[in-house]
Amino acid sequence: MKFSPLFWPVELKGKSIYVLDEALLPQKVKYLKINNYKQAVEVIKEMKARAVGQVLLVMYSFILLYRQNKSRKDVGEILSRAADAFNTARPTLSFKFLTDIVLGMYRQGAALDKGIASFLQGLKTKRMAQAEKCGQLLQDKDVVLTHCNISGLMPLIGEICRQQAKEISFFVTETRPYLQGARLTAWELKRAGFSVTLIADNMAAQVMKEGKINKVIVGADNLAQNGDIANKIGTLQLAILADYFSVPFYVICPPASNAKSGDEIKIEVRPEKELLQFRGTCITAKGVKGYYPAFDITPNSLITQHIYFA
Amino acid sequence: MKFSPLFWPVELKGKSIYVLDEALLPQKVKYLKINNYKQAVEVIKEMKARAVGQVLLVMYSFILLYRQNKSRKDVGEILSRAADAFNTARPTLSFKFLTDIVLGMYRQGAALDKGIASFLQGLKTKRMAQAEKCGQLLQDKDVVLTHCNISGLMPLIGEICRQQAKEISFFVTETRPYLQGARLTAWELKRAGFSVTLIADNMAAQVMKEGKINKVIVGADNLAQNGDIANKIGTLQLAILADYFSVPFYVICPPASNAKSGDEIKIEVRPEKELLQFRGTCITAKGVKGYYPAFDITPNSLITQHIYFA
Repeated sequence: MKFSPLFWPVELKGKSIYVLDEALLPQKVKYLKINNYKQAVEVIKEMKARAVGQVLLVMYSFILLYRQNKSRKDVGEILSRAADAFNTARPTLSFKFLTDIVLGMYRQGAALDKGIASFLQGLKTKRMAQAEKCGQLLQDKDVVLTHCNISGLMPLIGEICRQQAKEISFFVTETRPYLQGARLTAWELKRAGFSVTLIADNMAAQVMKEGKINKVIVGADNLAQNGDIANKIGTLQLAILADYFSVPFYVICPPASNAKSGDEIKIEVRPEKELLQFRGTCITAKGVKGYYPAFDITPNSLITQHIYFA
Repeated sequence: MKFSPLFWPVELKGKSIYVLDEALLPQKVKYLKINNYKQAVEVIKEMKARAVGQVLLVMYSFILLYRQNKSRKDVGEILSRAADAFNTARPTLSFKFLTDIVLGMYRQGAALDKGIASFLQGLKTKRMAQAEKCGQLLQDKDVVLTHCNISGLMPLIGEICRQQAKEISFFVTETRPYLQGARLTAWELKRAGFSVTLIADNMAAQVMKEGKINKVIVGADNLAQNGDIANKIGTLQLAILADYFSVPFYVICPPASNAKSGDEIKIEVRPEKELLQFRGTCITAKGVKGYYPAFDITPNSLITQHIYFA
């Protein structure tokens, strides 16, 4: 099976972690070198790693930190401090699930580096299983609309379908302002040999109305216990539109967080300049404000089927 | 009453027509000089004039053409040829309404230049009446979400409300890919002294859900006889979202076209490079296709109230 570089965008080699700099894609494929968890927290805050990349970055950071400090008496406190730093890096994302696993492993006296490596192998296996399950929902000639980026899972789903002699093609929203759809998803699907058509975020209703797409698949950054999800801004309106046009809306989910419902998930508001500028050029007049909620909550009722991480 | 430059963006002076080059806003306020109708057709095809600017450009072009040719025997044929050129400039827009008026005036033996000038005075009066009517629908502290650009009417509506001691503020969608919201509407509202907040096109559902806006007002490029409208791509999904969140959705309409319903209005598909590039830079990977329907149809059933041109 071929994988997108975005499926496993972070690697641990020796004393450093190498992070695919998603901000430079698709023009450049370049890896950032990270030597400690403080640098990792900065990379997460600056959105240079996202989604699965963040999970890998957090976990590899703990491996490094553990290796560097395992002979010290206060290694537990050091690990706790790192956990706090990750947990407060971005409001909507739930790293606590991960840091609790790490601290739990430590308390049980396990060799943390081996424990984490085993956890990550499980992550890989479960993500491949999700791609398999999602592939089963698709039929030959389906055209899938997707939004933002699901860390290499879309080309994997397409590849699984291809092996089953099902030909899938894709429409991708730009996903303003960070353009993850245009820069990441369209790129990884095209390099895997699929037909990919980009649309602006305001064209989703029209492509549904015209029947140009017949399934929607998105990822999720946070799954609440009642089935509500938080995902990249724009997901909620795609779900409402899919419901209006009777298009199935599938969500590839992470493990559930502690949030009882979407109401308990805090929405991160990013700096307005990330919206008001495009590659350093202001796109509007001086004095115009910007509002940039980075995520939204899609209620369980609008989701046709969750593809759980299990 | 103060007017936005976009309220009347085309002027006739002597033997030339001066067209506000909307593609350069808000960085530069520059007027293009047009000397004949063929140049005018090109300006329309290149989207350097839009909406009311196109109406003015068509009508002033006929004044010029008539003045240059009124002593010729074949002036009627010359006017007809120009009408055909305008009518085929852009698929979704209906210039036939205008060219029929012009040809009708000519056949009735009127002095065409005076007839058109009188028609344009009527246009101005009727547009101001629309702004008045729309202002009546708004209440103090309303926050209006708008999309694309309604040729100077939004600041006029805000100004009318201000004179009635009603304070209105605005959220504006970027309106990708041409950014009319960011470049034109946000600019003209800000220069008129209103609070303006820009959002990406994928944030509309979230600002409705959060209650940050409580009315939607858009324009229309084509009004069918059953109340369906064609407007800038993205309008349909705003209407669906407004309906979902029970937000009133108002449309400022042009005169009705001959289309019986929205089904009879052809949707213009623009060149994909206008979507795939931003200021000359490709925003996605090589080989990715683009789909750019420039308009969509919003059904009458999703429109809370039409503000008719009458």
